[in-house]
Amino acid sequence: MASEKPIVVVTCTAPVNIAVVKYWGKRDEELILPINSSLSVTLHQDQLKTTTTAAISRDFTEDRIWLNGQEEDVGQPRLQACLREIRRLARKRRSNGHEDPLPLSLSYKVHVASENNFPTAAGLASSAAGYACLAYTLARVYGVDSDLSEVARRGSGSACRSLYGGFVEWQMGERPDGKDSIAHQVAPESHWPELRVLILVVSAERKPMGSTAGMQTSVETSALLKFRAEALVPARMAEMTRCIRERDFQAFGQLTMKDSNQFHATCLDTFPPISYLSDTSRRIIQLVHRFNAHHGRTKAGAGLGAPGGLHGACFAGGSLPSSPRFLKGLPVEPILLSDELKAALGMDPVPGSIRYIIATQVGPGPQVLDDPGAHLLGPDGLPKPAA
Amino acid sequence: MASEKPIVVVTCTAPVNIAVVKYWGKRDEELILPINSSLSVTLHQDQLKTTTTAAISRDFTEDRIWLNGQEEDVGQPRLQACLREIRRLARKRRSNGHEDPLPLSLSYKVHVASENNFPTAAGLASSAAGYACLAYTLARVYGVDSDLSEVARRGSGSACRSLYGGFVEWQMGERPDGKDSIAHQVAPESHWPELRVLILVVSAERKPMGSTAGMQTSVETSALLKFRAEALVPARMAEMTRCIRERDFQAFGQLTMKDSNQFHATCLDTFPPISYLSDTSRRIIQLVHRFNAHHGRTKAGAGLGAPGGLHGACFAGGSLPSSPRFLKGLPVEPILLSDELKAALGMDPVPGSIRYIIATQVGPGPQVLDDPGAHLLGPDGLPKPAA
Repeated sequence: MASEKPIVVVTCTAPVNIAVVKYWGKRDEELILPINSSLSVTLHQDQLKTTTTAAISRDFTEDRIWLNGQEEDVGQPRLQACLREIRRLARKRRSNGHEDPLPLSLSYKVHVASENNFPTAAGLASSAAGYACLAYTLARVYGVDSDLSEVARRGSGSACRSLYGGFVEWQMGERPDGKDSIAHQVAPESHWPELRVLILVVSAERKPMGSTAGMQTSVETSALLKFRAEALVPARMAEMTRCIRERDFQAFGQLTMKDSNQFHATCLDTFPPISYLSDTSRRIIQLVHRFNAHHGRTKAGAGLGAPGGLHGACFAGGSLPSSPRFLKGLPVEPILLSDELKAALGMDPVPGSIRYIIATQVGPGPQVLDDPGAHLLGPDGLPKPAA
Repeated sequence: MASEKPIVVVTCTAPVNIAVVKYWGKRDEELILPINSSLSVTLHQDQLKTTTTAAISRDFTEDRIWLNGQEEDVGQPRLQACLREIRRLARKRRSNGHEDPLPLSLSYKVHVASENNFPTAAGLASSAAGYACLAYTLARVYGVDSDLSEVARRGSGSACRSLYGGFVEWQMGERPDGKDSIAHQVAPESHWPELRVLILVVSAERKPMGSTAGMQTSVETSALLKFRAEALVPARMAEMTRCIRERDFQAFGQLTMKDSNQFHATCLDTFPPISYLSDTSRRIIQLVHRFNAHHGRTKAGAGLGAPGGLHGACFAGGSLPSSPRFLKGLPVEPILLSDELKAALGMDPVPGSIRYIIATQVGPGPQVLDDPGAHLLGPDGLPKPAA
């Protein structure tokens, strides 16, 4: 009874997250266990998301994956770790006596297609959204309903934080096997809906070092990083959680900036030094400080620079002045800058230094798309032609 | 018996120094006591020096000072602290029963004229050479032969390191009164004569924060700075001393770069963050790393960025490739870069990013000039007209 249709097809979306207490450095490279806990804001999928379709069929002869329309090597270790882990969880679930909705499915091969609705060049931690989406979609396909932190984490550490909406903590854990290194929600997106996030996409001036190699070098050479992870981050996690619970934007913005700066400081203390901050990024930070100083309080916070690209995210308590020409995402009302404010900022515009701005907000976690039209794979299990 | 001639005129020169273990942060703002020890290389006065003339006369009605030909306010606190301290030492010496070569001189007013032979815009810690020269010259005028660390230090912390030639340690000390916070020579300039120092003067892109305000903010806000000072610098001082004693250029160059980076890291960890590194500085650092990687060993070390200006100092074990057009100081033989090396550096030239290069070497401490023609003050106690 050969079938042309895959037995199961599931399509899900997952969000990007931006850390406000940064993750930098692994204590276990294989299991991707961090040297400190971290905390992030999940960004809304109306603006930024990964969409992933997974299909299993007895007709598939091998696991295959397509990213943004291009077939990729399914044998890469992190992808394999995710697949192995999700199948392990599915087996475990079955052996625990749960009714199996998908008999035989574990022996079937999987086809995966994944797309980002934002340019990877924006440097927006696409791997976090990507691996969260992969973990979430595979879980639906294989009928797994347990915690997916490990599946996502094995793909990309911070991916486990994209498994939840709102404000998400990734507890570093203590166990050598990583079973307690899991993500959980600190507060849902509905807790602080007025928070706005502006992503300033700056021109890439040069290719920075990738995060995997970067953090490994930092862990090996930076005494400041070790001290930060052990002695400073625990108190910052507690303080950031308080800021979120109490919606204390002043303290939230300041701590976000401080933690971003400290992360970049440990990169600079790495040997050879790593720099993810361009002159444009530094000017943005300075502008935010002058903007806040002019207003006498923290109305905006800058938390810049996930590696893997150059970008900045500004958390705004109010609306930041900006030209509508570059604006994507949520509507932002342009305002006229007062001469006073212009004088306080004391910066000449540098045309072209910011490519565009995405205005967004806190958003929900991964979603299952019920519309079959959303599937990225056709009935033959291959990517649909681009519309 | 009125006299037109000042009773005593003395002219001295003093060197610039560049720290290889950096000083950043005071534990006492008034006494200028540091939170960590530091170590520097004294640069040769053939290339860079401050010249200072001090004169005392019963005819002078007030203390006066001219810097680079311009009269300055002699009432500024740091200048006053130096004058007070040198007169205290002179009084102490007299009360200790030493024969006083200059009776009555303590009640006389002093005229001081000081000049740098390098542009202040080069950011070359001109205050260190300046205050060292002031302390040294005043000591000759007032007949003081005790340790001058405190006199120089009260003007500018790192000035005490310019009181000696060669390699100089400034011990942070422990006493609240700062009596044990003194500079001393680790090795004379003759110890490592083949060491070359290249100073790369980069274009100032913007005025950075001054070092006094900068370090105060760092001490108040950077947990990484506190940790560095307490937990990391002591071992670095010991290691740097070993590198110098054993003329271990590999380790010397690496530690210099690491310490410079760590200093900049603590600046970035300051809130609001301080940045003394421009994109040009970062490119120079990267170039040095690639140059060394290509050669398989540390042939050059970059230790960038004293505040108060933007500059870099490269310690070169061999000769760095450079165009003779920008070269000042010691002769440097231009070499043709191999295609291999060019490919390894992988950087396009950025015309104008380096204004010029000064090639120099380790040099001696302050000198007394015997030639009366060298005096910057005329017989009337006023600056001589520019020649």
